[in-house]
Amino acid sequence: MKIDLNADLGEGFGPWRMGEDEALMSLISSANVACGYHAGDPLIMDTTVRLAKAGGIDLGAHVGFPDLMGFGRRQMHIEIKELVTYVIYQLGALAGIAAVNGHRMTHMSFHGALGNMAAADAALAEPLVRAVAAFDPRLIISSSSSRAIEGAADKCGLRVATTFLADRAYDDDCLLVPRKVEGSVIKEPAAVLKRVRQLLEEGTVTALSGKVLRVPAHSILLHGDTPGAVELARTIRQEIEQLGGHITPISQLLAAS
Amino acid sequence: MKIDLNADLGEGFGPWRMGEDEALMSLISSANVACGYHAGDPLIMDTTVRLAKAGGIDLGAHVGFPDLMGFGRRQMHIEIKELVTYVIYQLGALAGIAAVNGHRMTHMSFHGALGNMAAADAALAEPLVRAVAAFDPRLIISSSSSRAIEGAADKCGLRVATTFLADRAYDDDCLLVPRKVEGSVIKEPAAVLKRVRQLLEEGTVTALSGKVLRVPAHSILLHGDTPGAVELARTIRQEIEQLGGHITPISQLLAAS
Amino acid sequence: MKIDLNADLGEGFGPWRMGEDEALMSLISSANVACGYHAGDPLIMDTTVRLAKAGGIDLGAHVGFPDLMGFGRRQMHIEIKELVTYVIYQLGALAGIAAVNGHRMTHMSFHGALGNMAAADAALAEPLVRAVAAFDPRLIISSSSSRAIEGAADKCGLRVATTFLADRAYDDDCLLVPRKVEGSVIKEPAAVLKRVRQLLEEGTVTALSGKVLRVPAHSILLHGDTPGAVELARTIRQEIEQLGGHITPISQLLAAS
Amino acid sequence: MKIDLNADLGEGFGPWRMGEDEALMSLISSANVACGYHAGDPLIMDTTVRLAKAGGIDLGAHVGFPDLMGFGRRQMHIEIKELVTYVIYQLGALAGIAAVNGHRMTHMSFHGALGNMAAADAALAEPLVRAVAAFDPRLIISSSSSRAIEGAADKCGLRVATTFLADRAYDDDCLLVPRKVEGSVIKEPAAVLKRVRQLLEEGTVTALSGKVLRVPAHSILLHGDTPGAVELARTIRQEIEQLGGHITPISQLLAAS
Repeated sequence: MKIDLNADLGEGFGPWRMGEDEALMSLISSANVACGYHAGDPLIMDTTVRLAKAGGIDLGAHVGFPDLMGFGRRQMHIEIKELVTYVIYQLGALAGIAAVNGHRMTHMSFHGALGNMAAADAALAEPLVRAVAAFDPRLIISSSSSRAIEGAADKCGLRVATTFLADRAYDDDCLLVPRKVEGSVIKEPAAVLKRVRQLLEEGTVTALSGKVLRVPAHSILLHGDTPGAVELARTIRQEIEQLGGHITPISQLLAAS
Repeated sequence: MKIDLNADLGEGFGPWRMGEDEALMSLISSANVACGYHAGDPLIMDTTVRLAKAGGIDLGAHVGFPDLMGFGRRQMHIEIKELVTYVIYQLGALAGIAAVNGHRMTHMSFHGALGNMAAADAALAEPLVRAVAAFDPRLIISSSSSRAIEGAADKCGLRVATTFLADRAYDDDCLLVPRKVEGSVIKEPAAVLKRVRQLLEEGTVTALSGKVLRVPAHSILLHGDTPGAVELARTIRQEIEQLGGHITPISQLLAAS
Repeated sequence: MKIDLNADLGEGFGPWRMGEDEALMSLISSANVACGYHAGDPLIMDTTVRLAKAGGIDLGAHVGFPDLMGFGRRQMHIEIKELVTYVIYQLGALAGIAAVNGHRMTHMSFHGALGNMAAADAALAEPLVRAVAAFDPRLIISSSSSRAIEGAADKCGLRVATTFLADRAYDDDCLLVPRKVEGSVIKEPAAVLKRVRQLLEEGTVTALSGKVLRVPAHSILLHGDTPGAVELARTIRQEIEQLGGHITPISQLLAAS
Repeated sequence: MKIDLNADLGEGFGPWRMGEDEALMSLISSANVACGYHAGDPLIMDTTVRLAKAGGIDLGAHVGFPDLMGFGRRQMHIEIKELVTYVIYQLGALAGIAAVNGHRMTHMSFHGALGNMAAADAALAEPLVRAVAAFDPRLIISSSSSRAIEGAADKCGLRVATTFLADRAYDDDCLLVPRKVEGSVIKEPAAVLKRVRQLLEEGTVTALSGKVLRVPAHSILLHGDTPGAVELARTIRQEIEQLGGHITPISQLLAAS
């Protein structure tokens, strides 16, 4: 069994840092890098791309709303045709930094509120995913489970890597429960680890309602921005390997046909 | 005699516009498009790229300091290794928007204070130009006359298109006199036109000191952001054509070897 | 009959201008000045405050979402306790610039999407209005007709000046119809003028549905940012004076008790 | 012997934090709070003001260049008349947040590159300090030793509190040696502590050149943004108290006449 481990990296800005990028780099097989809109700046992007290249880690763009102060976690109601250009701008910027460092972007994902909105709304997901395809049809969309995203990617011929968030609650539609809902973030390491095991052994997740849902997963998201997160990430990786899993970058899991 | 006509376009931001992009588009053969740091935003970049493509006009990135409030006209003392990443970020962003519109970036130029600083300082010009080459070695650097830029481009094997600014005074080193110096901006249309004629017929410019300098020029910069500017641009174009000049995009003037 | 004429001024940013502030200054009795979040910067605020002081015009803060690129016209879902601090920040900044220029802030209003959201939602209006009162209980809230704002102001003991937007359609609740709805913006000068006359003579507005609604108005909003807008503003002012109206700054209309 | 202990607080932005504000709050007698230009945002400002008020700590505005990405540490060449409005904007914003929290601004200081430039250049210091006086003549200027700042304050009748930076090297003019110079930042806790002792016992500092300079100091700056910084700050405070010093807020040290 092959599975990717991914993390959101390069989430600092200017003098500020977030998470432990270097420690995570040694645990993951693909990275989602902020592109300056909700976090990240060119220098941080450059540093992160170099680390990814040095580690043989797949590089993805993590695109978000233009809202540094809110870290891209606040809904913004932006016209589609404008939002599409924001996505392309961010993809291009990271692709440029990848190019000068001799690395290549393999995938992209939508961050925060943009990600949640797109995952829940096909009318938003379709033009966004189409824009990704227009930018580079070889890109893989990395997304938590979402019929909207998967349907949109299907129409464009893009591949989707479904990411499992072991520390976030799911609703009965297999969408992430918003952060502000009580119980949406699972903080207990043992509970997180149990969810990883359930996914690997049974291919399921237990939703907030208690319902057991099938959830296909190509990748598991690790975090590095809370106390103990890196330790938990390390434990998750060990657990996967003990269960016989092979950590594999996203682009090798979903090889282009 | 072939010469390019270029203009700085897409210099609005959000709800604000600057200059008369549509009118200028019908007069020029290459456009320098702001990339979001000193001006421009993704939607404006997209609109400008579409106009350029529709008009068969060469597309260039106009990269500047991260200073919207100062329009990139204020010196910022940024470490080279950081500044280099800002340049790549902007190039990548515009290249992305060009790609989804089926257009191609042919050139780039440094805007405002960044342009002035690089033109006067080889220690700054070299890493910046090297970064451009690393991004795309086919790009042409568009610059007002500068030994620093030309020397740096030479070392990297990049082509340089020298731009003549008919409405700006030159010093005895053939560098632009800074805007805040009295007499640096030539406002009288007849005087501007006379300088264009002198350039085309004699290949020279009369510096602020009165000294006559040889100035090689592949391109003439037109403005669209002051009253009467478009009218003057139209007159300059007519004058060139009457003198037998052929308006030719920068990439055709300096064909890759 | 006394009525205030107000306009949104200082809506440029950095090198960009919007509207014809100087022309409007000679027509209005109170100004709403952008505070750097959706538009405006310190230099523009300073210039606008000086003009207002020189003209004997009431000065108000026009506070909005932190979204220059979207001009504050896009909804952002920001937590109330955070949004309240954004409002105070903007009020304080303009009050500071007023103070050094020997002028005084007499009122404030909510701009764009923030204004629309607050006008339609008491749960949002109450904490925002309470924050204004905490900042300065003498401030008048300038708002288009809204029970949410009026109710909130009432609870805090703040005065409300109801503004009539002659060029915007109203719904049956006397709220502004959102800009994206067909027919929401009335462009025909004659139609705008007719609405002013109806307001002054009958105290009513005809809603988009055709229904005639009573609308109390202390002030009429003039625009300066579209072709012909200043001319229309001048005509509206003349019309008011011919109907016997006395143009009176907001703070004199609603003198503190 | 009375001395103030101050620290730069509220230096986060959006989701990012810098330094250990809560730990430092228990050690200092006055705080310099970032105002949104080089760091800080309204919510962080509000939180920091509340902490300062709760701790009975003097509140000051820390004003800087509009450069979040560079943390205000990069020189920007901004016209004086514009820069003056940036200073007022920031002072006003913090004053507003102070007001709604029932606290009062007692002092201000210039941050980073702006501080260094003003400390070394009377032509810059004078209009900036005059602007502070125009905003509120009761404000104390908190500054590292600088004839330019002291002279400017003198002319305006403003009080100056000289701050000693125990971990920064001084040049022979008693100005701070720029950060990028080797040896400018003293990292060894024992060396920092020794400098504090020398200041308290002899009123001197040993410059980078080895020269011993008299340095009047009303305040000592503590840091909280490097590993071990809070521990060092605690040690410095204990050392001062053991030497018989009384920690006293800046506004009580320099009572208005």
